[in-house]
Amino acid sequence: MTEPLRITVWNENVHEREQPEIAELYPDGIHGAIINGVQQLLPDASMTAATLEQPEHGLSEATLAETDVLFWWGHRAHDAVDGAIVDRVAQHVLSGMGLVVLHSGHFSRIFIRLMGTTCSLRWRNDGDRETVWSVAPGHPITVGVPDPLVLPEHETYGEFFDVPPPDELVFISSFSGGEVFRSGLTYRRGLGRIFYFSPGDQNYPIYHRADIHRVLANAAEWAKPRVERALPQVSNRPRGWFQDESIAE
Amino acid sequence: MTEPLRITVWNENVHEREQPEIAELYPDGIHGAIINGVQQLLPDASMTAATLEQPEHGLSEATLAETDVLFWWGHRAHDAVDGAIVDRVAQHVLSGMGLVVLHSGHFSRIFIRLMGTTCSLRWRNDGDRETVWSVAPGHPITVGVPDPLVLPEHETYGEFFDVPPPDELVFISSFSGGEVFRSGLTYRRGLGRIFYFSPGDQNYPIYHRADIHRVLANAAEWAKPRVERALPQVSNRPRGWFQDESIAE
Amino acid sequence: MTEPLRITVWNENVHEREQPEIAELYPDGIHGAIINGVQQLLPDASMTAATLEQPEHGLSEATLAETDVLFWWGHRAHDAVDGAIVDRVAQHVLSGMGLVVLHSGHFSRIFIRLMGTTCSLRWRNDGDRETVWSVAPGHPITVGVPDPLVLPEHETYGEFFDVPPPDELVFISSFSGGEVFRSGLTYRRGLGRIFYFSPGDQNYPIYHRADIHRVLANAAEWAKPRVERALPQVSNRPRGWFQDESIAE
Amino acid sequence: MTEPLRITVWNENVHEREQPEIAELYPDGIHGAIINGVQQLLPDASMTAATLEQPEHGLSEATLAETDVLFWWGHRAHDAVDGAIVDRVAQHVLSGMGLVVLHSGHFSRIFIRLMGTTCSLRWRNDGDRETVWSVAPGHPITVGVPDPLVLPEHETYGEFFDVPPPDELVFISSFSGGEVFRSGLTYRRGLGRIFYFSPGDQNYPIYHRADIHRVLANAAEWAKPRVERALPQVSNRPRGWFQDESIAE
Repeated sequence: MTEPLRITVWNENVHEREQPEIAELYPDGIHGAIINGVQQLLPDASMTAATLEQPEHGLSEATLAETDVLFWWGHRAHDAVDGAIVDRVAQHVLSGMGLVVLHSGHFSRIFIRLMGTTCSLRWRNDGDRETVWSVAPGHPITVGVPDPLVLPEHETYGEFFDVPPPDELVFISSFSGGEVFRSGLTYRRGLGRIFYFSPGDQNYPIYHRADIHRVLANAAEWAKPRVERALPQVSNRPRGWFQDESIAE
Repeated sequence: MTEPLRITVWNENVHEREQPEIAELYPDGIHGAIINGVQQLLPDASMTAATLEQPEHGLSEATLAETDVLFWWGHRAHDAVDGAIVDRVAQHVLSGMGLVVLHSGHFSRIFIRLMGTTCSLRWRNDGDRETVWSVAPGHPITVGVPDPLVLPEHETYGEFFDVPPPDELVFISSFSGGEVFRSGLTYRRGLGRIFYFSPGDQNYPIYHRADIHRVLANAAEWAKPRVERALPQVSNRPRGWFQDESIAE
Repeated sequence: MTEPLRITVWNENVHEREQPEIAELYPDGIHGAIINGVQQLLPDASMTAATLEQPEHGLSEATLAETDVLFWWGHRAHDAVDGAIVDRVAQHVLSGMGLVVLHSGHFSRIFIRLMGTTCSLRWRNDGDRETVWSVAPGHPITVGVPDPLVLPEHETYGEFFDVPPPDELVFISSFSGGEVFRSGLTYRRGLGRIFYFSPGDQNYPIYHRADIHRVLANAAEWAKPRVERALPQVSNRPRGWFQDESIAE
Repeated sequence: MTEPLRITVWNENVHEREQPEIAELYPDGIHGAIINGVQQLLPDASMTAATLEQPEHGLSEATLAETDVLFWWGHRAHDAVDGAIVDRVAQHVLSGMGLVVLHSGHFSRIFIRLMGTTCSLRWRNDGDRETVWSVAPGHPITVGVPDPLVLPEHETYGEFFDVPPPDELVFISSFSGGEVFRSGLTYRRGLGRIFYFSPGDQNYPIYHRADIHRVLANAAEWAKPRVERALPQVSNRPRGWFQDESIAE
């Protein structure tokens, strides 16, 4: 349906600009690292960055209309995201645009809006080893991903993660301190598909890893729309409309 | 945990006050009919009405704190419900209060908030026969409910109903014109339980039926909280907290 | 992963050989009609028939090993299917082969084996109109399928259909007599994907319809394996195996 | 519906009779430990043991007919369980009897039958700490259960656990070596409810713990039938049967 795949990677881009140690880890920004990595796996994809400081946060109506899958990374500046932009993104997701929410994006306004829950969780930042296990072998998002995928050091996220029970549970992580976390979750909402993937704290070079690029590339392919974008609408048609061509939709 | 069960039935109470033909059908209001019917099946329950025109729509913090299960009926006045009250109800649901959303309540602000989708659907009002089939025999909500439950005349709701895939699909309705509708749906959100049940248009005497009372009474029992009310919170505790009593929660 | 797609259409092929009126409806057999129709939509696919009367019912180990997706149509001769062949098919499905079970195949030994339930349902054969509604717009199986898909005359299947709650509910049918039926269901089992689709009684020319071919072609694409075929195995490896290459799998 | 609750605890009872070190750990058998513990929490329940060496493995038709919830512990002697008894138990579960499958019971014939998958998993027995986390706060099975529930030493079970995606994921365990396991799973099958709970290896005194008793008692209450026992049956009734009392079921 959509060839080539058009991916927009949104990043609040605050840590990288304000903290030299993060800038050193991500000299092209987290968005740049994601684009560099995923582009190698999806050479035909059209990948673009959008960031908070741009006009309309880089998410104009025109940009979203031409985006098949939107990646979302945010952390410190969730509240700086304009409500009208959140509305706009939600409309596009419900109309069929794919959305991949990353790490601390669990607390983004767009994710909370689409989930309807607090999206709260446990966390501590002690550089634990995170081991990401697949519980859905054969799922398109796990193809080519090592099982387990081992992150030698990462921030710890732990349950209870207050999200709706997912349509599909894809990954579960354990941390060396003993916590577990549902780290890969799929949701269908409206005509859109949402994937949440928890690895990716700004303090660790997660987005430079080939195995993580593989998950993100798979997620983009999985989340892309299969049909014309259209927001579900209330419909009032007369009895028998579906059998009478003169009154059919 | 909560004995006796405390149920608050919220109704916008507009049709009954403004349209004589509806007032004739529901002289005690839709809320009154629900309370009269469910009370017979749950004689120990404490049942109270709350309506839009009351201060805080009858949904003060104190009222919600003492409500185990909230029923919600609204139609014409969804936009008249104050956003702060919607926030308050959402917090209570995520903290464990049960919520039973009825019929046109699919477009209520509280339901859209908790679902994250448009909650749109097809409709037409032609007095079709609605036949409500159970697809979850043995589920507590279906116990004692005729299968099928036949409503000789009702408004037609049809798919696509834009809600998240439910945790459990309990009822599916057909209409004599050919439409189908997922008419009984359960959701867990936060610590709370939500049941959506579509029968109940104001133009038909649905809420005077014993079989409908049975569904509503079952839903109340099913949705009631099992644990202390508590909003899921972000938590940051040191490594190993769960093994060291001195730092445990 | 598998190009071109290799589809085997299994049919018990009893009605067509024993009943002239069915032979007239399906001169090439139900399997022939399915192959003729789907092949037009998937011109690159390699499509083969297999039938009950062939050695090993046409389902040798070699055939299954080279089958990406197996369609299954059976009705009168479920008990004539050899248990060893049922075992073999089950192993291939759990190892990743796709399976599309059609109509009265709900009572096939392979479907009951994989579901674990009785797979019983209501039925009556009165030539009702069946209206197949999508409840998963945007799902790959619904792309290009009319919503609703109307079958002017068909056998009636009704709830309660005793199958596990599906991973995804794709279609719901209504019948002019009032019954409803969950007519399109997806399941993941092992590494395999299963789709059950209820239209297709031998007395009606369902498999000559282009809209039905579209559903079947979509289902084949959806069900095809994404990874190397492998039966899930019990695994006993030493502590830390996933971090020590010398002991890794 | 069923008062008092009638629980039958089935145990193959082989380790306890053949290995003195297990007999020392479980002088009353694993079944005895479970009964002793759960009875304290459900003083009104009628609890009975049944074991492999009894006639019909202690699972006569009469016994099952009077059992609301059956617990199942097996490990070394799965193949010694008679196929006819497995059939009988399956029929009762699909008819509404609750089933709680414990630990190595994942490889029991009854569990494989009802799941339809291989039910294989990873394992190693190194005395790791197992930490059992709730991912369904408010679920009846988690009420009063510490979160996390910590088992200082236990056998390790790890993913991929080849079972159908559960209706509800209740618990996830981590092990000190890094593995994760979906350790508490619910399934509806036919009219019955099934709960799988992984803790409980014979080499560890798991079933002497009060927190484990709490899980088991909750599971029994959750799994008990709500309706008359009845196996789902194929049904063939004339058009309109549900509106004509003379032909209704």
